Amino acid sequence: MTSFTQYSENSDFSIHNIPFGVAVFNKEYIACCTRIGDMVVDLATLYDYGFLDEVEGLTENYFEAYTLNAFIELGKPITNAVRLKLQELFLENSPLAKDEKSISDCFFDLDQVQMMMPVHVPNYTDFYSSIEHATNVGAMFRDPENALLPNWKHLPVGYHGRASSIVISGVEIHRPKGQTKPKDAVSPIFGPSQQLDFELEMGFIVNENTEMGDSISVENAEDSIFGMVLFNDWSARDIQSWEYVPLGPFLGKNFGSSISPWIVTLEALVPFRTASPKQDPEVLDYLKFEGDKNFDINLEVYLKPENGTENLISESNFKFMYWNMAQQLAHHTVNGCNVEVGDLYASGTISGKDKNSYGSMLELTWRGTNPIKLNDGTERKFINDNDTIIMKGWAEKDGIRVGFGEVSGQILPAK
Amino acid sequence: MTSFTQYSENSDFSIHNIPFGVAVFNKEYIACCTRIGDMVVDLATLYDYGFLDEVEGLTENYFEAYTLNAFIELGKPITNAVRLKLQELFLENSPLAKDEKSISDCFFDLDQVQMMMPVHVPNYTDFYSSIEHATNVGAMFRDPENALLPNWKHLPVGYHGRASSIVISGVEIHRPKGQTKPKDAVSPIFGPSQQLDFELEMGFIVNENTEMGDSISVENAEDSIFGMVLFNDWSARDIQSWEYVPLGPFLGKNFGSSISPWIVTLEALVPFRTASPKQDPEVLDYLKFEGDKNFDINLEVYLKPENGTENLISESNFKFMYWNMAQQLAHHTVNGCNVEVGDLYASGTISGKDKNSYGSMLELTWRGTNPIKLNDGTERKFINDNDTIIMKGWAEKDGIRVGFGEVSGQILPAK
Repeated sequence: MTSFTQYSENSDFSIHNIPFGVAVFNKEYIACCTRIGDMVVDLATLYDYGFLDEVEGLTENYFEAYTLNAFIELGKPITNAVRLKLQELFLENSPLAKDEKSISDCFFDLDQVQMMMPVHVPNYTDFYSSIEHATNVGAMFRDPENALLPNWKHLPVGYHGRASSIVISGVEIHRPKGQTKPKDAVSPIFGPSQQLDFELEMGFIVNENTEMGDSISVENAEDSIFGMVLFNDWSARDIQSWEYVPLGPFLGKNFGSSISPWIVTLEALVPFRTASPKQDPEVLDYLKFEGDKNFDINLEVYLKPENGTENLISESNFKFMYWNMAQQLAHHTVNGCNVEVGDLYASGTISGKDKNSYGSMLELTWRGTNPIKLNDGTERKFINDNDTIIMKGWAEKDGIRVGFGEVSGQILPAK
Repeated sequence: MTSFTQYSENSDFSIHNIPFGVAVFNKEYIACCTRIGDMVVDLATLYDYGFLDEVEGLTENYFEAYTLNAFIELGKPITNAVRLKLQELFLENSPLAKDEKSISDCFFDLDQVQMMMPVHVPNYTDFYSSIEHATNVGAMFRDPENALLPNWKHLPVGYHGRASSIVISGVEIHRPKGQTKPKDAVSPIFGPSQQLDFELEMGFIVNENTEMGDSISVENAEDSIFGMVLFNDWSARDIQSWEYVPLGPFLGKNFGSSISPWIVTLEALVPFRTASPKQDPEVLDYLKFEGDKNFDINLEVYLKPENGTENLISESNFKFMYWNMAQQLAHHTVNGCNVEVGDLYASGTISGKDKNSYGSMLELTWRGTNPIKLNDGTERKFINDNDTIIMKGWAEKDGIRVGFGEVSGQILPAK
């Protein structure tokens, strides 16, 4: 497939991708959009011009909206048909390819748009599904010989996170203040976190509202997943370690989480399906699955000091996940918990076996005992004020590349 | 103050209350409302008839809405003024008292209305702020000699709950299914929860949107609280105890939580302010407070078997709380976590010192070892299918009574 829009060979946004997002165009007009190469395409105008008339069920301009929620809620038969139609329209010799006015009205350079949160997120859950990450954390904070807790291999451990503070890539985050208890202190102290960290994660967005009492089976779960994003679950380790017993992470996490602006559909990721790690012991029936449910998505984390350049500090892959997305969604709803359109379900930190594939500073520096050396000569145990963390993700196979772009966020000093 | 509407001496909805809710009137029309005695008052029509014209800042009909969020967001100066104006209108000899047509159009009997969720809840947090409850649970599951974890007296422990499954009083809840690990089993099993419980709680509703990075001080926190509700945090103890390490409660809680339909404003509760329990050790500066921040609110829990009558199984009081609402909100935002209009912050189980004041079956039956005898001769360790749990709450002082009505919910068999 060749598009009439030129883009570089290593673009994340090839004709095989066709992701969805929301943008402010020319600082004045908001609409849902897609992206091809370095062009952002205003779908509301494209719809008005009639290019999507053939898509059955797309009965009104769902793209004239501040979020993708109403579009996503149409369900896979319609959202897939839109994606395929867009792919067709972007090909050489399509009716759109020859229509200069439509291209001029609908296609925007990156510097003419400002990406916004792609969805309203009613509920956000964070899982803990990388065995390497859970093992590293357990070894550091509990017992290297019994790093995994007894439940870990029987169910995808998860907890509810804070939906209000999920922000789009580029939004700056203030270093959180809070209560911590230094090892040698008699009483807790209050101040800016001294152990600010990132967590390299991916998240998926749900496309339906279910009724309380109903469940989504592993078998059907992927039909309920619209697509995926990159996700940085910022974490204040010192606040978290003091507060988290017995009810879990709270202020150590809820000061902010960042997502990438483009939702890459599950359909665009199909070519990159891959086998899951073997689950032993065998899981309960409601968690059993068939086929390739993992996805081979390369992940990178960069740390960029103020006025410095990007340092690659981690190289991981989404295929390492022990628990897959279908299992996560089936588990989440097996008790009758209802889901809502736009819900975000994050993977938990994605670490691999190798030390350079760990998905957090906590693991990369092994709790600060082995600082990272940056290319400007400085060192990091955790994140400094004004550092920027950038995560990138893409899949590549047989010359086809589908990527997420990046999620980036700069840490500002505490307010 | 005497109202032109007659109501019994022990009505929760006296002229001193004036709570807010949302109702379906005559099965066809939805609007925000208040209640006086056993009459529900349609505020949208009352506004249209001009009775609220004198309230400054109430520039449009915010009551013509499916939730109270837009009204609440107006802030205390306006919402308080509306409450006081309504109180004035409900007095004998008010302009409304003499207006038969307006009364006939705006006042509805209880059987003509169906109460709905009063607010859209964007975020829900559950605290763990009763020292008696935390001590009981710690003694049962950990160590009676060290029942409280080291952080408990230094900060109001809390965690994020599931907003999607908060329902209004009267909605039936299906018994959740899930993974549990019986004591003597080698592996976990799957099935309906065998230890279904209630938690007697109260919750407060926030009236403003804050920016990420900003905090609400203890001193100002009550200005951000619109009002309170009764809250039943249904809990499946067997699911919870297997899943909750290390990240907290998840499927043991998120299958459903129930709230009472009427939001009682903080202003209506002012006469019932009372001193807080002494906090020792002294808390950090950001948690220090002055004045009476607790509220003397009587709480009762009833269990009603199918075809049976109500059994009073617990008598507690909101004044027992170790951490008050102002401290909870200050703590929640001290790290820059933003809040949103309609957010619900629940207290955690409200237990007292006496055994009959415990706020859960877990504590009342001491983990099932001391079953409750009901008036039909049956016993309960936990909640049976088709049992209904009813919680009631009211404050009373110097002949003034302000109450919440009830939150009730029946447990249906697992789906």
